[in-house]
Amino acid sequence: MYDSKKFEEKTLKRENIFEGKIFQVVRDEIAQPDGKTGFRELVFHNGGVGIVPIIDDKILLVGQYRKALERFIYEIPAGKLEPGENADPATAGLRELEEETGYSTDELVELPVFYGTAGFSSEKTYLYYSDKLSKVEKPRPKDDDEFLEVIQVSLDEAKSMLERGEIADAKTIIALQYWEIQRLKGA
Amino acid sequence: MYDSKKFEEKTLKRENIFEGKIFQVVRDEIAQPDGKTGFRELVFHNGGVGIVPIIDDKILLVGQYRKALERFIYEIPAGKLEPGENADPATAGLRELEEETGYSTDELVELPVFYGTAGFSSEKTYLYYSDKLSKVEKPRPKDDDEFLEVIQVSLDEAKSMLERGEIADAKTIIALQYWEIQRLKGA
Repeated sequence: MYDSKKFEEKTLKRENIFEGKIFQVVRDEIAQPDGKTGFRELVFHNGGVGIVPIIDDKILLVGQYRKALERFIYEIPAGKLEPGENADPATAGLRELEEETGYSTDELVELPVFYGTAGFSSEKTYLYYSDKLSKVEKPRPKDDDEFLEVIQVSLDEAKSMLERGEIADAKTIIALQYWEIQRLKGA
Repeated sequence: MYDSKKFEEKTLKRENIFEGKIFQVVRDEIAQPDGKTGFRELVFHNGGVGIVPIIDDKILLVGQYRKALERFIYEIPAGKLEPGENADPATAGLRELEEETGYSTDELVELPVFYGTAGFSSEKTYLYYSDKLSKVEKPRPKDDDEFLEVIQVSLDEAKSMLERGEIADAKTIIALQYWEIQRLKGA
């Protein structure tokens, strides 16, 4: 297919810039494939998990303020993976789903894993789809710093929200497109 | 719809952590909606643009080494927006398309703008679709630090690449799903 050696960027020197709670930042001096040196600014993040929750042909979305955007948007239920959770992202996804919406499921369909912004960040997101959801009697409480609004909308309503920019993040767009493909295929 | 004031996270103090060439990092102390204080680690990035290039019912993909992932993946042609280019991302997208693949077009369909990783980064990606492409006689050269492999694959081949993890980034998955929806709708 391809000779990966031909493209590899070898690390010559790493400068540790920031050790945060959510991510780490480094600046690597690299050897390009042609032998010249270059620099790469990188963000390391432990990854996340999202669930595409469909009930009665409507999707559950969670509205929240996103400080990086300085605005409120609607997204599928999702959360960060804690260290050690990468081995079992589905369980972490079910926890987030329950905390944020009060629903759970024992039937998850695994969607492709993706990198939200491969150009500089290692953040990897696991995605699962379920249209077999049920209410949890006493759901786990939300995290202390989460202030959420949960809504349930049809595909057409979600597409209007996307046009208006009220839905605007990669994982939720991937979720809506996946849902639409399933419907178009009559699944 | 919602009372945005109810959810807003006001900045109490901002700590500038890193001023890079590609992104900036800050740590904000915020007032949560309940009045408690919290912290947000944020990455500010000028955004990017990608083109979904379809020729003869095949998509052009660009393979490159991604240092943040330490591996080689295939993506749609794309690039960073330089300061000032946010006003006209389509032109920047056409430049990247020409540099990376040698193709251009005067017919672009605008897809929804998205944030790759809204949890911590402001990076916004503009996406355009075109199935009216033509070879440029003397295309602009690639950037000095870009080492690329261009391939042209069918939707089925691209889906197999996605399953094998050779395609793995959000914008390319959104591109493939958009293309599949167009085909399913018979567009």
